[in-house]
Amino acid sequence: MSSNKTISGFSKLSKTGKIKWVVENFFKDPEHVMHELKSWWHHDKEQQRLLDGFSENTISNFPMPFGIAPNFLINGKTYAVPMVIEESSVVAAASSAAKYWLDRGGFHAKVLGMKKLGQVHFSWRGKAEKLESVFDELKEELRKDAAPITANMEKRGGGVLDIELVNLTHLEPNLYQLKVSFDTRDSMGANFINSVLEEFAKTLDRFISFHPIFDENEERDVNIIMSILSNYTPECLVRAWVECPVADLGTFSGGYTAQSLAEKFAKAVRIARLDPHRATTHNKGIFNGIDAVVLATANDFRAIEACAHTYAARDGQYRSLSQCTVENGIFRFWLDIPLALGTVGGLTKLHPIAKHSLELLGHPSAEELMEIIACVGLAQNFAAVRSLVTTGIQQGHMKMHLANILNHLGANEQESEKVMQHFEGKVVSFTGVREYLDAVREGAGVKV
Amino acid sequence: MSSNKTISGFSKLSKTGKIKWVVENFFKDPEHVMHELKSWWHHDKEQQRLLDGFSENTISNFPMPFGIAPNFLINGKTYAVPMVIEESSVVAAASSAAKYWLDRGGFHAKVLGMKKLGQVHFSWRGKAEKLESVFDELKEELRKDAAPITANMEKRGGGVLDIELVNLTHLEPNLYQLKVSFDTRDSMGANFINSVLEEFAKTLDRFISFHPIFDENEERDVNIIMSILSNYTPECLVRAWVECPVADLGTFSGGYTAQSLAEKFAKAVRIARLDPHRATTHNKGIFNGIDAVVLATANDFRAIEACAHTYAARDGQYRSLSQCTVENGIFRFWLDIPLALGTVGGLTKLHPIAKHSLELLGHPSAEELMEIIACVGLAQNFAAVRSLVTTGIQQGHMKMHLANILNHLGANEQESEKVMQHFEGKVVSFTGVREYLDAVREGAGVKV
Repeated sequence: MSSNKTISGFSKLSKTGKIKWVVENFFKDPEHVMHELKSWWHHDKEQQRLLDGFSENTISNFPMPFGIAPNFLINGKTYAVPMVIEESSVVAAASSAAKYWLDRGGFHAKVLGMKKLGQVHFSWRGKAEKLESVFDELKEELRKDAAPITANMEKRGGGVLDIELVNLTHLEPNLYQLKVSFDTRDSMGANFINSVLEEFAKTLDRFISFHPIFDENEERDVNIIMSILSNYTPECLVRAWVECPVADLGTFSGGYTAQSLAEKFAKAVRIARLDPHRATTHNKGIFNGIDAVVLATANDFRAIEACAHTYAARDGQYRSLSQCTVENGIFRFWLDIPLALGTVGGLTKLHPIAKHSLELLGHPSAEELMEIIACVGLAQNFAAVRSLVTTGIQQGHMKMHLANILNHLGANEQESEKVMQHFEGKVVSFTGVREYLDAVREGAGVKV
Repeated sequence: MSSNKTISGFSKLSKTGKIKWVVENFFKDPEHVMHELKSWWHHDKEQQRLLDGFSENTISNFPMPFGIAPNFLINGKTYAVPMVIEESSVVAAASSAAKYWLDRGGFHAKVLGMKKLGQVHFSWRGKAEKLESVFDELKEELRKDAAPITANMEKRGGGVLDIELVNLTHLEPNLYQLKVSFDTRDSMGANFINSVLEEFAKTLDRFISFHPIFDENEERDVNIIMSILSNYTPECLVRAWVECPVADLGTFSGGYTAQSLAEKFAKAVRIARLDPHRATTHNKGIFNGIDAVVLATANDFRAIEACAHTYAARDGQYRSLSQCTVENGIFRFWLDIPLALGTVGGLTKLHPIAKHSLELLGHPSAEELMEIIACVGLAQNFAAVRSLVTTGIQQGHMKMHLANILNHLGANEQESEKVMQHFEGKVVSFTGVREYLDAVREGAGVKV
């Protein structure tokens, strides 16, 4: 291997040039790796070019399994939900929960708000009361100057909702912000919001520099620090729920009656409300479902995650996003989660599979997609907690993990059966399975 | 379209059977969609079967761009970092920050702890002091019974570190937990931890049922609620940092001197410490980098996200994960983040591209991967904040988004140039671009 591990102008190389440099300088078997990386390219050059355009310095495609969770009854409408996830059991669990609730009235969801947010952060040494006294005038200027940018969004029924002056000088000397709320309709709105905010920043700068109310010198100096959307949108919120008489829950493995299952389930959810260590894992399970649909529809899972986790910590302690009650014979399980999603804009129409995801869901509006995704999160959470409080989760996980490894090692049916027998109730590791399989293949399985 | 939107036994259908049911019941042009979904399958059936095994009900592969950010100097070693991300500018920004710090001593990182956690939650009506008085005895039993499961991990230098009894009866009647800490070496450890905990639960149940210290009747009744790892691992922590004399920062677009840039940069980071609305977006940017490498190495980004966001809220307010100081002429920018990662186990060796990611990084240990990923997060944050406090981010974003759309619409060079000219400084929307491009193509570009 050469030691040429730094490079100038990498981004200017052709795709093949990039791969060549990477495999020659970092891999033991460059030819083989190059062949494997190229094997994942799409055969249609235009499709591949489109995909490469989404990011930079691309050399291959990273394939994620695209699966379907059918039988989701949500607000009376039936969906087959597209899910992109590399973790085993997630799609199976969502499907199982969907089927379970299909017979019990299905899932329900309601959007509680669609408000997006953005901020212009600035430093200013002037008197706050002066700025407040002319703030209405400033707002008018801000809206007027941004009109060319907001016109189209207004035609679609959205736009700037409100502009607020926030004084943060008690936390940091001279620090203020314009806190702006938006309605961005069916788009996630990041580009729109950032464009408006950058325009607002220019207007703010000019307004303070030239308005006669401000004294000469330092009161005219405003320092725009940054203008950017906030991914924390607690009022872009959706509620999803399931409910049924406790008696209708049925019986469960482990010999649970409906009543005992309901109470144990509710207790498990309460634990996730009161213990942050449990809350993190509980919410992680919700996101297994949520992110899978977010990815499948080419939305941005980092934005979704950051927002909802901040929301989970809003009262000063990190808590479960879902809640459960068993009262007056009714089992009720629900989830409040902020989800800033788009069904137009971004990659939604551009990604070759994501566009089919949206068609599969019946071309939903952003509100409908919020409802669908919140329900999938709730379904995932239901399946996980049900499994945790009854059989435990390891049984299923280990079985799937073992099957993956056997698959990878090319085990035939007979070999697989022997290995599965051996590992029943044991911890599955790649090395352990390979060693045992080797032994089976050498006809020495019994000795291991 | 038929209205056969629910189904029994979907998971039992063949892959082609699944696609057929989906396209026939949910799509307007079933043949075309089936063809497109199939076009993303890998031509090698074994490769495709492996990938399908990772999840359930799979019908296609969802391709994510696999890109390279070269020139990452971390603890004196140079890496080309694999990144899987669908968002434009992320890989370009990481590469730019890597190159920038390559000339300024590179990135530094240090693992501060590797402790993983798990919990056995249980209800019990007995006297806490009694259980505490025999807890050492219980611990011995727990370790002994789990020995067949822990033996292999102990050979690798890991295992159960400590077992603690946590009394939560002040929060919920009769609620306790075993809080268990683990060293899982180079594996993320979820399967190992869950297997140990489920074994612990059995021992706990038996111990309380039969130990002579407990009175008959209700003191012998323990109710195991659930046994599961905690994804919140604040002591599985890594610190990443960059530092250099302020003078060495150079000059920046917008006419910033090194000193003024450093101060403005530090102020932007302080704002993300004190304002949760900004903190969410700031940390989201860090995760743009982190998740891209987490995905590329087949680690679980939901686990990583849930953990670090909980950590960001640990003092009662959600805050920036990174911090910055400008003191005594030194610019210092750092990030503390818990990252529970694996470089063995799970899909790391199984995913056809992820295994090459790990080879590209030189087959790192889990500790080394923690350091690499924390540095990529810091690099991403550096690039984002630098861009925010100087030119703003829209200029670059809009350009890339426009290029994607033109690409999708098959615009030639001449057409692209006209459209780009028109949209300079304007908000880019798919519909807007298509309409203008149509006009250009009809030779009527000037009228729009």
